[in-house]
Amino acid sequence: MIDAKSEVRLRQQLTLVALGKVSADRILRVGKLLDTATRTWSENQDIVIKGERIAYVGPAGSWPGTCETIDEHPDMMAIPGLGEVHKHIESSHLTPEWEAALVMPRGNTWTCEASHEFSNVRGSKTLDFWMTARQHGSPLKIFPLPGSAVPPTAYEHGGGWLGHDEQRDFLAGSLMVAGLDEVMDWPAVWNPENPSHERLWGMIEATFAARGVVEGHAAGLKDLPTINAFAAAGMASDHEAWTAEEFWNKLTHGLFAELRPHSMPDVISGLLERGLADWSQIAFATDDRSASETLQKGATDYNVRLAIQSGLQPEIAIQCVTINPARHMRLTPWVGMIAPGRFADIVLLSDLKTFEIAEVWADGKQVSRGNDYILPVPEIDWPEWATNTVNVGGQFSAEDFAIRAEPGRETMTAAVLRPFFWEDDFLTYELPVEAGFVQRDAAKAITKFAIVDRFSGQKAVSRMFWAGTGPKTPDCALASSLAHDKHNIWCVGSSDEAMAKAVNALSEIGGGWALVRDNEIVATVRYEVAGLMSQRSAEDLDADMQKLYAEGEKIEWMFEPSSSPRWWAGFPERLAFATLTCAPWRWVLVAPSDYAPEGLVNVATGKTHKIVW
Amino acid sequence: MIDAKSEVRLRQQLTLVALGKVSADRILRVGKLLDTATRTWSENQDIVIKGERIAYVGPAGSWPGTCETIDEHPDMMAIPGLGEVHKHIESSHLTPEWEAALVMPRGNTWTCEASHEFSNVRGSKTLDFWMTARQHGSPLKIFPLPGSAVPPTAYEHGGGWLGHDEQRDFLAGSLMVAGLDEVMDWPAVWNPENPSHERLWGMIEATFAARGVVEGHAAGLKDLPTINAFAAAGMASDHEAWTAEEFWNKLTHGLFAELRPHSMPDVISGLLERGLADWSQIAFATDDRSASETLQKGATDYNVRLAIQSGLQPEIAIQCVTINPARHMRLTPWVGMIAPGRFADIVLLSDLKTFEIAEVWADGKQVSRGNDYILPVPEIDWPEWATNTVNVGGQFSAEDFAIRAEPGRETMTAAVLRPFFWEDDFLTYELPVEAGFVQRDAAKAITKFAIVDRFSGQKAVSRMFWAGTGPKTPDCALASSLAHDKHNIWCVGSSDEAMAKAVNALSEIGGGWALVRDNEIVATVRYEVAGLMSQRSAEDLDADMQKLYAEGEKIEWMFEPSSSPRWWAGFPERLAFATLTCAPWRWVLVAPSDYAPEGLVNVATGKTHKIVW
Repeated sequence: MIDAKSEVRLRQQLTLVALGKVSADRILRVGKLLDTATRTWSENQDIVIKGERIAYVGPAGSWPGTCETIDEHPDMMAIPGLGEVHKHIESSHLTPEWEAALVMPRGNTWTCEASHEFSNVRGSKTLDFWMTARQHGSPLKIFPLPGSAVPPTAYEHGGGWLGHDEQRDFLAGSLMVAGLDEVMDWPAVWNPENPSHERLWGMIEATFAARGVVEGHAAGLKDLPTINAFAAAGMASDHEAWTAEEFWNKLTHGLFAELRPHSMPDVISGLLERGLADWSQIAFATDDRSASETLQKGATDYNVRLAIQSGLQPEIAIQCVTINPARHMRLTPWVGMIAPGRFADIVLLSDLKTFEIAEVWADGKQVSRGNDYILPVPEIDWPEWATNTVNVGGQFSAEDFAIRAEPGRETMTAAVLRPFFWEDDFLTYELPVEAGFVQRDAAKAITKFAIVDRFSGQKAVSRMFWAGTGPKTPDCALASSLAHDKHNIWCVGSSDEAMAKAVNALSEIGGGWALVRDNEIVATVRYEVAGLMSQRSAEDLDADMQKLYAEGEKIEWMFEPSSSPRWWAGFPERLAFATLTCAPWRWVLVAPSDYAPEGLVNVATGKTHKIVW
Repeated sequence: MIDAKSEVRLRQQLTLVALGKVSADRILRVGKLLDTATRTWSENQDIVIKGERIAYVGPAGSWPGTCETIDEHPDMMAIPGLGEVHKHIESSHLTPEWEAALVMPRGNTWTCEASHEFSNVRGSKTLDFWMTARQHGSPLKIFPLPGSAVPPTAYEHGGGWLGHDEQRDFLAGSLMVAGLDEVMDWPAVWNPENPSHERLWGMIEATFAARGVVEGHAAGLKDLPTINAFAAAGMASDHEAWTAEEFWNKLTHGLFAELRPHSMPDVISGLLERGLADWSQIAFATDDRSASETLQKGATDYNVRLAIQSGLQPEIAIQCVTINPARHMRLTPWVGMIAPGRFADIVLLSDLKTFEIAEVWADGKQVSRGNDYILPVPEIDWPEWATNTVNVGGQFSAEDFAIRAEPGRETMTAAVLRPFFWEDDFLTYELPVEAGFVQRDAAKAITKFAIVDRFSGQKAVSRMFWAGTGPKTPDCALASSLAHDKHNIWCVGSSDEAMAKAVNALSEIGGGWALVRDNEIVATVRYEVAGLMSQRSAEDLDADMQKLYAEGEKIEWMFEPSSSPRWWAGFPERLAFATLTCAPWRWVLVAPSDYAPEGLVNVATGKTHKIVW
């Protein structure tokens, strides 16, 4: 933990250690060491460690003090522990202590946690939640940025409401709070008439007042006037650009660029082609990556490897996950360099070009060998506010998902959305009516999609028809409490009964995934903490996910392309992101609210519409 | 002024201007524009201005809004207003509104004010003082860093005492307070037994707690253990290194490097020789420069020109006075880039290589043409707490400066210092006694030096013999209230009567300089604000200084070299810095105190000693 008072005591002691007047705990002697400030290597260096921090760095044997333990690694290259400038740990679906066990062997020792997933579930507990694992001894440093998108739009509710006073209190509550998580409700930022305008600017004001960083999210904001407006509003960064040109325009308008792997190869080669010589305003960001994907690809190390493969000089790539994000987030006293006063978090590489990590050290101790985390994972008794977060209000039945037709109608016109549908107007279809209810039309790849409010306990459901996704196979449904960013429950199904079963199963396990085939539960994956994360190893969770995928493959899934390149055929896991309501989304389905009783609302304009007429 | 609440209102409007929904005040259309984030130029650009800020930057004609005024500068290159990362405005000896008139035509639009001069005179008024000129409309942005050295050592007193609570209140008082000014009492930092230890760490704690920057001052701290200890203590920077090697060792230990002109040519060429490719942790610092010197050499523009002449690429040199210091000081939302949301502070160059400044704009208005400041300088009625700061307690006579001998002695042994004398032990000399008083010895280049307490009103004087400085000509004395950093009055003279006359004259004008020849006042220069600054133009002040220098030339000044390369023969103006008590000083003369009744004290050890025995 970092607080000013203990920071002072600790640094007073480190000062005496550096001078050799107080003994050290350990010396890590390495063959090469990268200084990220000058981007240069030096050879045969000692890193002198006291407690969790670095006290001294210099040529082997140069420190004047005494220390009993010297760990020699003459064949290894030391670089600072790698940082994530923008990551939702919730998207690993592991609790923070298990996230540590997964990502630390892969080099990631500190993370600026973009907390709007958890904050949307238990807003008031944002700080408590992210501090807990470290309080129990986990070596991963989490710097929380409370979610600005809580709620994501004024048309959503439940789970948390964060405004000026809440953000002021978070920033006053811990020096580890670096700022405000990605401001993504662009209409609420620029438009004074948007009902979230005041709340959002209140959080921005509180962040300015505490000298924090206001993180941006400028997805789809590509034209120069909007990029200018975004920067003028005080946003410090963007991580949503897709092309080198878009990042260039954002960089040159004062936005710090956070590159995500999806577009990294194109962006890096594009920036190199443009002759970019100064990468100091650039960092790499994982944003969202599941534990399963991390097991396959890697964590921060994957991002670095990808950057090197894309043509970036390895040392610059390392700066993009060390000093650059540390400076941007104003965390240089603690992370980003192997230098005195910083955490003794060190990645030992056996090969630079392939970025092969041999060992990771954190808090002055070895935490991994290869991909193996060698410390015990702390056992945390997560409190009720973290584990009891799915409150739907009772058992659901098929009727809860039915859409009633007007009397005497044989067809009804339906407003229809697609996943990742960013056009100004929704689609419309004529759909058949049977026994007084509007029916899906599998031939047109149209089926039912619902949002179940999991906060109010009111059995509140909104439902409509979506195109280009969902089971074609009859009597199937998939439901999840992972529903960015409000994290209600979404459910897509080919029968109302299957949908009810899926939602009931999900409610029973406290969130996660539930898959129904032939009207029977065939797979569940529990995310029992906040309905977003599970308290177990990545491997255990992955095993459950693989079962879910295997069962999912037995179902025929409809598919049509949409506005996003990141929407593909097969098991529709990415529906968890299709419930987003930030820019560039327009028409979305949210849980029923006073603004939008049926849940269909245009988040850019505030307009609502009937789902069938 | 910057505060979170008005920042929000202002940025809400700027956002609408960027989008073209609200009109702008003015468009500045330039031939070329430097983006300091990517270090690249773009051509034919519009800078759209609303109020004091930039709302939009883009190709000419690309902004969608309306604006009546377009200023076309097709032949000019626009770069951001230049920033000083570490400057004592007091050392210009101009009040801040007159400092603006002097430095702004020379490109300097924002300054991180290292306030320990003023803070040592009126500590409690630190924030009020530095905000006043801007409140009266001066376009120079001053970001004050309250002095950590208040008092400079525990052996000095009066004028101000700043600790944890004072620093906490300054940081809470304005977002423009960027952090803590150079921590320079190194013995108090590392040594828990030093009587300033607690006060100093209290200020550091308050600065950490408010996410501020703790600036360092590591003069003479060159060995690796001490550099490590300095960084471990939480210091963020150093500006006192003299060689490329010293800066390299500080850079690679996590310290931001602030290069001053004195050593810049050697340091820059040395860093280039070492192949430094990443200059992002480097800025240029003026530190101290008198108005007279600025008139001759320039202000921040001089530093940039010198860097270019020393071999640095001009664009990198510009980064060292724009984005680099802005990022280090966490001021990127306001300065360092020509980007939306930032102050519309722009330097228009007619030539890059010679760094020729044609115009400077600030707050969206043209402020200069060539070296001429074209705005009216605000008339400020500086309050009594600023103008009435010399309180010596009455008229002095020759006896106040006499040093009594023990009865019956013909000689006495005297402890003798030199200016800029950094050895562990003082010098000793046998000096003659006449009529019961110890006498100076001009043949040995020894004369009398005194410190007069100007805060207590107690007529408190400490005096001793100094070697290698002062008037050889009889009946002369020079006195000044510019006595870094405690800013009492120092006086050096060849007769006690002349010394008394000089101090009395100085007291009468409220501080500044007084020169006595043949026991008559021959020149005075008033620094009527805080005894450090004068409320008039640089040219007026310089005229007075030139008179002082001219009269000074009529006196023969003794000289011997000392530890500092910046100590030279002739008029001993630099005695104003010879009263410093920070590292690497050891034995110094301070005003009489309980710790050191005669004023002679070793600031590294706390030992005191008799001045004669």
